[in-house]
Amino acid sequence: MCRWLAYSGTPLLLDTILYKPVHSLIDQSLHSRLGVVTTNGDGFGVGWYAPENTDTPALLRDVGPAWSNRNLREIADHVTSPLFFAHIRASSGTTVQQSNCHPFRHGRWMFMHNGAIAGFHLMRRDLTLLVDPALYADIGGTTDSETMFYLALTFGLEQDPPAAVARMAGTVERVGREHGVRYPLQMTLAVTDGARVWAFRYSSQGDSGSLFYSSRVETLRRLHPDVAFLRDVSDQTRLIVSEPLGDLPGAWHEVPESSYGIVEPGGDDMRSFTPEPV
Amino acid sequence: MCRWLAYSGTPLLLDTILYKPVHSLIDQSLHSRLGVVTTNGDGFGVGWYAPENTDTPALLRDVGPAWSNRNLREIADHVTSPLFFAHIRASSGTTVQQSNCHPFRHGRWMFMHNGAIAGFHLMRRDLTLLVDPALYADIGGTTDSETMFYLALTFGLEQDPPAAVARMAGTVERVGREHGVRYPLQMTLAVTDGARVWAFRYSSQGDSGSLFYSSRVETLRRLHPDVAFLRDVSDQTRLIVSEPLGDLPGAWHEVPESSYGIVEPGGDDMRSFTPEPV
Amino acid sequence: MCRWLAYSGTPLLLDTILYKPVHSLIDQSLHSRLGVVTTNGDGFGVGWYAPENTDTPALLRDVGPAWSNRNLREIADHVTSPLFFAHIRASSGTTVQQSNCHPFRHGRWMFMHNGAIAGFHLMRRDLTLLVDPALYADIGGTTDSETMFYLALTFGLEQDPPAAVARMAGTVERVGREHGVRYPLQMTLAVTDGARVWAFRYSSQGDSGSLFYSSRVETLRRLHPDVAFLRDVSDQTRLIVSEPLGDLPGAWHEVPESSYGIVEPGGDDMRSFTPEPV
Amino acid sequence: MCRWLAYSGTPLLLDTILYKPVHSLIDQSLHSRLGVVTTNGDGFGVGWYAPENTDTPALLRDVGPAWSNRNLREIADHVTSPLFFAHIRASSGTTVQQSNCHPFRHGRWMFMHNGAIAGFHLMRRDLTLLVDPALYADIGGTTDSETMFYLALTFGLEQDPPAAVARMAGTVERVGREHGVRYPLQMTLAVTDGARVWAFRYSSQGDSGSLFYSSRVETLRRLHPDVAFLRDVSDQTRLIVSEPLGDLPGAWHEVPESSYGIVEPGGDDMRSFTPEPV
Repeated sequence: MCRWLAYSGTPLLLDTILYKPVHSLIDQSLHSRLGVVTTNGDGFGVGWYAPENTDTPALLRDVGPAWSNRNLREIADHVTSPLFFAHIRASSGTTVQQSNCHPFRHGRWMFMHNGAIAGFHLMRRDLTLLVDPALYADIGGTTDSETMFYLALTFGLEQDPPAAVARMAGTVERVGREHGVRYPLQMTLAVTDGARVWAFRYSSQGDSGSLFYSSRVETLRRLHPDVAFLRDVSDQTRLIVSEPLGDLPGAWHEVPESSYGIVEPGGDDMRSFTPEPV
Repeated sequence: MCRWLAYSGTPLLLDTILYKPVHSLIDQSLHSRLGVVTTNGDGFGVGWYAPENTDTPALLRDVGPAWSNRNLREIADHVTSPLFFAHIRASSGTTVQQSNCHPFRHGRWMFMHNGAIAGFHLMRRDLTLLVDPALYADIGGTTDSETMFYLALTFGLEQDPPAAVARMAGTVERVGREHGVRYPLQMTLAVTDGARVWAFRYSSQGDSGSLFYSSRVETLRRLHPDVAFLRDVSDQTRLIVSEPLGDLPGAWHEVPESSYGIVEPGGDDMRSFTPEPV
Repeated sequence: MCRWLAYSGTPLLLDTILYKPVHSLIDQSLHSRLGVVTTNGDGFGVGWYAPENTDTPALLRDVGPAWSNRNLREIADHVTSPLFFAHIRASSGTTVQQSNCHPFRHGRWMFMHNGAIAGFHLMRRDLTLLVDPALYADIGGTTDSETMFYLALTFGLEQDPPAAVARMAGTVERVGREHGVRYPLQMTLAVTDGARVWAFRYSSQGDSGSLFYSSRVETLRRLHPDVAFLRDVSDQTRLIVSEPLGDLPGAWHEVPESSYGIVEPGGDDMRSFTPEPV
Repeated sequence: MCRWLAYSGTPLLLDTILYKPVHSLIDQSLHSRLGVVTTNGDGFGVGWYAPENTDTPALLRDVGPAWSNRNLREIADHVTSPLFFAHIRASSGTTVQQSNCHPFRHGRWMFMHNGAIAGFHLMRRDLTLLVDPALYADIGGTTDSETMFYLALTFGLEQDPPAAVARMAGTVERVGREHGVRYPLQMTLAVTDGARVWAFRYSSQGDSGSLFYSSRVETLRRLHPDVAFLRDVSDQTRLIVSEPLGDLPGAWHEVPESSYGIVEPGGDDMRSFTPEPV
């Protein structure tokens, strides 16, 4: 299990979101409150879109804990981005190695995940076989999460993310049940193409990991007129997080079970999510 | 702050002590109960004496968490030793790097430590200057712990460990107070020459980190006649640990404040410890 | 491309073979003479059989260069073994990560390789699908080498190593040619079960990487009566290496093209090797 | 010994300088032509000034070889800077660890070095004692290079770089000779405050490592009117490098022995360098 956050809005120094808040993501790497485990020390990653390169987001990933990583600290202090993902990993068994660290990337797309495929060891082969052969050789690691990403790509992530994730989730559940696993899927995941962010919360058992989105900035400004930070960010700035950062009352709303949210220029939306086996 | 253990007795596979027990040291790397912090994920080290090389103990140290390190797992599964040290680190601020991982070694001697010199940043120079110039260039890292080791070596560790450690502690307290630090020293530390082990518990404030030694094996055997493990180890087998392993009632005794114990062939001993400034 | 060595014979401190010789394997990590590249700095591994654990060999693998790795230096100085493999890696494109470092292990078996499957990226999926589904989920990395190992295991490595390696090589060639690759395979590889060592030299083009075996110890003793080392090792001691160590005239013989050797108690043997597609 | 480059001029994607050129710095990490050693695989660092943070440059440093580091590749592909340093390390004996990787930083200042203090092990203590006590505790590693940086800071680097480096060099020579070392210093080093770059070439023996500066851009444009790259960079763009990148005839000039150059807005300069013992 893991923790993650997705930021979209006014370009900010990564530090503002990654380290500065009370109970920041970096603090969660040592002291998660809502996670299955309190320590998320099995690697980390941050992916950001930079104006210098519009083809792909940049990734910094490493295998040690985020809390002591000096390169992450440097990037957070010196890089500004309007859209970034950050992830801290608590391995559910697969190897601690850079290629297993989130976010995963394909072209302009990034993907990160908290959760697990129950019994993944049993069904890894069957699931991997369903990945588009043209994509297969790009699989770089050994996690269930990356397999989910490649399945979603296979099922059309770049054309219709909600439909592709629904097909991925449905396929994982079908294959899982064929292997006798009752509740195969547990996921909170985010994908982005650099312009929009989609965040999903779902589990076969209806008991998903926590996921929150930030309140509308204009609402927060009214609630907390004295918080300088809120004056500097646009109305369309949003955060989606595994567990709340900071301590502003009224700042966070839970993403409902079996739902997904879209963050995009011009207005956000929340919809219900149903797996669709292929 | 950190956690450590020292083993001396019947040669055992390291796994038996490092991984097998309930609440093993490896488990403590994620879930310490008695430490200042619960996570000890800032590197680790194990040092063992091997019959193949009587000049120096072997060291395996690395910067990631012990809980996910595959090389540590391999060594634990394949190496047997009659005397070994193991340490998991929670940095109190100094860099997470291999040269800052315990145990430290000098010839046949090993040293490991839990605790801190308060205000070390202020007095690092003054303390380092007191290290024997012939030893100075061997200092490989930047920790207070290694400085303590080199001061103890300077003050005669290889001739009289308790006296050398008393002089080191007294010196740290004197220099600390010169820098306006009221309680400069907090330590539980162990040293060995491969034959004997000395373990010290002391703090300037009289509020030292926890330290325990195992009961006599013959006593444990009487208490727990059904525990196979106890039948296989000699009467002189001893463990000294930051916090108890396993769940055998009667197995552990606290080392008193301001004390040190000696584990040696032919009989152990516990004595009081008083710093002696040089 | 990579460099490797396999040692079998009188138990020796690993240092004696890994570091001590002129042009040792560690020296080859910086200055290979016969390899495709001179630097083999993309990770390393050493695997050894220890009397303490007869179920599996021990593995020490890491991602940095062998030449600066302190844990490798420590193990070499403190571990003795009658049979060990050592490997230094020069990646031909796949990721530098611990799970891609040789030797690979399955139960009592170890495998290491120098060479490449040409066009592996194209045929990775097809080859992986041929791996026994019961073994599939144990694949830990992403290299052509590990795929070759799992194919050989699938084809009966544990029952008949030469036949299984022949089937693996034939299968790689068949699949490669189906993908339009003219010379799909280039390999010098070694496998062992802890008692015997098999070493193969083969390439589709008949232009294989170099491979040498050491002369009979009794012959060497006659040639070099003053070399102390030779008096200490048994007649049955053998080394197989990618390129010669040391500078003893008469010490090395090239393994012929399309051949394999067996090193076993009671006598060695060299035979011709022909791939057999399955 | 090591290789490095300093870039100052039109903001460029780091990739343009670090990876793209024939015989780029990354290529030099495997195949240096002019260095004492051909392989520079003992860690690397890149430091750049970013508009987002004017207090300090950003540093990305790591212990593995530059040639396989994925985070360096990512940063090079996504970060643009008008002034950056890059360094690849070949350890002359000190530990391979992140804190020993160049560039070193102090506030706005960066420092990197190729060369060595002969006999540093002997005189490390004496040299370190000369570091300003207020700076002493910030020394993070164990190299001669970092000691040189802290000595230069002690001697006024932030006020007058050439004078401070002259005093540092003179002091190293004086202390070295007190320890019986005939030729104590060998250096090509660069320092910057983010606006100007100073690059020094000096050795006690008058046999310094190679150092080159790029020709004036207007000259290069005239020589090579068809090279697109040259049309995109300002007249004041300069590179200083341990060994030439690319293959443009007329592009490089050697920095003379016992000299230093200044690259600054409005005009560059080359002057002679003489150590001045303190």
